[in-house]
Amino acid sequence: MVVKILITGGTFDKEYMELNGELIFKNTHIHEMLKKGRCKLETKIRTLFMIDSLEMTDYHRKIILEKCLNSKEDKIIITHGTDTMVATAKFLGEKIKDKTIVLTGAIIPYAFGSSDGMFNLGSALAFVQSLPHGVYIVMNGKYFNWDNTKKNNTTGEFQEIK
Amino acid sequence: MVVKILITGGTFDKEYMELNGELIFKNTHIHEMLKKGRCKLETKIRTLFMIDSLEMTDYHRKIILEKCLNSKEDKIIITHGTDTMVATAKFLGEKIKDKTIVLTGAIIPYAFGSSDGMFNLGSALAFVQSLPHGVYIVMNGKYFNWDNTKKNNTTGEFQEIK
Amino acid sequence: MVVKILITGGTFDKEYMELNGELIFKNTHIHEMLKKGRCKLETKIRTLFMIDSLEMTDYHRKIILEKCLNSKEDKIIITHGTDTMVATAKFLGEKIKDKTIVLTGAIIPYAFGSSDGMFNLGSALAFVQSLPHGVYIVMNGKYFNWDNTKKNNTTGEFQEIK
Amino acid sequence: MVVKILITGGTFDKEYMELNGELIFKNTHIHEMLKKGRCKLETKIRTLFMIDSLEMTDYHRKIILEKCLNSKEDKIIITHGTDTMVATAKFLGEKIKDKTIVLTGAIIPYAFGSSDGMFNLGSALAFVQSLPHGVYIVMNGKYFNWDNTKKNNTTGEFQEIK
Repeated sequence: MVVKILITGGTFDKEYMELNGELIFKNTHIHEMLKKGRCKLETKIRTLFMIDSLEMTDYHRKIILEKCLNSKEDKIIITHGTDTMVATAKFLGEKIKDKTIVLTGAIIPYAFGSSDGMFNLGSALAFVQSLPHGVYIVMNGKYFNWDNTKKNNTTGEFQEIK
Repeated sequence: MVVKILITGGTFDKEYMELNGELIFKNTHIHEMLKKGRCKLETKIRTLFMIDSLEMTDYHRKIILEKCLNSKEDKIIITHGTDTMVATAKFLGEKIKDKTIVLTGAIIPYAFGSSDGMFNLGSALAFVQSLPHGVYIVMNGKYFNWDNTKKNNTTGEFQEIK
Repeated sequence: MVVKILITGGTFDKEYMELNGELIFKNTHIHEMLKKGRCKLETKIRTLFMIDSLEMTDYHRKIILEKCLNSKEDKIIITHGTDTMVATAKFLGEKIKDKTIVLTGAIIPYAFGSSDGMFNLGSALAFVQSLPHGVYIVMNGKYFNWDNTKKNNTTGEFQEIK
Repeated sequence: MVVKILITGGTFDKEYMELNGELIFKNTHIHEMLKKGRCKLETKIRTLFMIDSLEMTDYHRKIILEKCLNSKEDKIIITHGTDTMVATAKFLGEKIKDKTIVLTGAIIPYAFGSSDGMFNLGSALAFVQSLPHGVYIVMNGKYFNWDNTKKNNTTGEFQEIK
C-alpha cells in the first residue's frame, strides 16, 4: 500500500523567520515528521504549494483536484491550512468519488513545541488507510465528511454540521 | 462515540527520575497528550498498571482481558510496552471478537523531544474508530492483526509475519 | 543575593495565537524558564510591558530607567526585543553607573522548540552576578558593553563596534 | 577569547537507546546546543570520555587534570555528571590556580524536553568568561567555589557548605 501526500502549506509548515520575526514557509516538515513517528508506510510526497490557506483560490484547488484525479494511488492525504480546509474539501468532495482523500493540518505550527501536528498526521495516515472512498477532514482526533463539517472560529475546532 | 483508553505503562509513559537518573513511571501522560493533540473525542481513561512490558505476566493480561470484556464501550485502546505487545495482543485476540481493540505504545518515551508517542496515539485513535471488530497493534503508521505480527528486535519495528 | 528581572516583552515571550495564527504576547514565560533551569537564585520579577521592541519608545525607556534607579537590588536583568535593544542599553548606560544591568532576549520565541531563550537567560543570570557595575547586552554567549555594540541585521547577531 | 570545553559525559549527554530502553552515551550534544544557543564565542571542544560520573575514578581525574594543565586556553568548561562533580572539582581545585575552570552538567538529559542543559551551558559559558581564576561548579543559576559546595542528594541541588 502506498499513500500519496500532497503538501499545500498551512500552519503545519510555518516557520519562524529569525531576522524579521514573521512566520513564513520554507520547506515542508513532513519528512522529518514521518521519521520522528517511525512511520514505515510507503509514501509518495509532492509539494504543490507552500501557502497560507487564506490565499487558497479555485486556481489552487483545480491543481489539487487534477493531482488527485491523476493519482495512481487511491489513498491521498492533503496538508492544508485550517481556515479554508472545508472549502477545499467541498471542492474535491463533489468531484472525486473513487478515492479516499483526507485533508489535515495543524492549529499550531510543527516547529512549536506545543504543536498538534504529529497527532493529526498520525490520525490522517490511519484514517486514509481505513475509511471508504470519499473526501474527509481529519482534525481533533476525528474525521468529518466533506459535506458535514465546519470550523468553529471561536474555538478553532472542527464540528459536524448535523 | 466514546473510546476507552486502558493504560498499562510501557515506554510511552516513562519519565526521567532526577535524583538517580533512572527511567521510572509516575503518572500517565495521556491526558497531556490528548490535550496537545486538541483531541475532541470523548474518552474514558483508566490506569490499570504502570509497568514495563517485560514485567507483564498472564496475571496482568487477565486483568486487561476482564476490563475489555466488561467494557461498555466497544472501542478500546491499550497503551502497552512494545516488548511484549504481541503476546498481549494474542492473549486478547483469541478471546475477544465483538470489540475493536488497539494496542499501541512508543519506541521513545513521550517525555523525550524525539518521541513517536503523539504520532502513535493519533493513529491508534483513528484506527480504533474505523477498523472492524478485532484486536490490532498500531505502530509505525500501520495496523497489524493480532495473529499476523511480530516485533523485529533488530530494527524495533513491527512487521507482518505472512 | 537577589537579582531583579524586569520584563518588557520581545521575541522571548511571543506566543502563537491559535485562532488567527499571529504571534502575540500573553504572559511572560520567565517563571517557567527559571523552573526548567532549576534556578535557585533568589529573583524578583516585575512585568513592565509586553511589547515588541519596535514599539519601544523613550516613554517606555524612561519607565525602565526609573525602575532601575529605584531598584533596591543592584543586579538587574531586562528582557527586551533585540531590534532596539542597543538603543535601550544606550539610554540606560548613560545614566546608570552604580548597578549591573544586563539586557537579554531571544532570536526565536521560547515557545518554539529551537529557541535560544534558555541559553541566553542562563548567560544573563551568570553575567549579572559576575560583571562590574555597568550596562550590558548579553546575547550569543557573549556580553557587550552598552557603548560598544550593534546588531548585525543580516546575521541577527550582536557584535562589538570597535 | 577562546573557551575550551572538555566533555566527560554525565546526564547532559545521555540518550535513549530505542532497542533496549536504556540511557546510553553516543556522541556529545554540545555542538547542537551551542548552535541552538546561537553561541558565537570561539570554542575548542574535546571529548575525553563519555561516562556516568559514578564511574569517574582518579584515573579519569588525572587525565582531566593533565588536559587542564596543558591547555593553552585559561578558560575551561568541563561537562560532568552531577553525582561526583564535587569530587572532581576538589581534585582540580587543589592543583590548578592559574586558570578559570567551570564544571557544569544537567539534572535532566538534553534529549528530554524538560532539560536544564541549555540554561546551565549558558551560565557556564558566562561565568567562565567573567570569574577570576579558580575552579567552580556552575549549576542552578549559581556558581560555587570548589571547596565550598556539596550536592544535596535529597533535592538534587548544589549548595554552599558554609
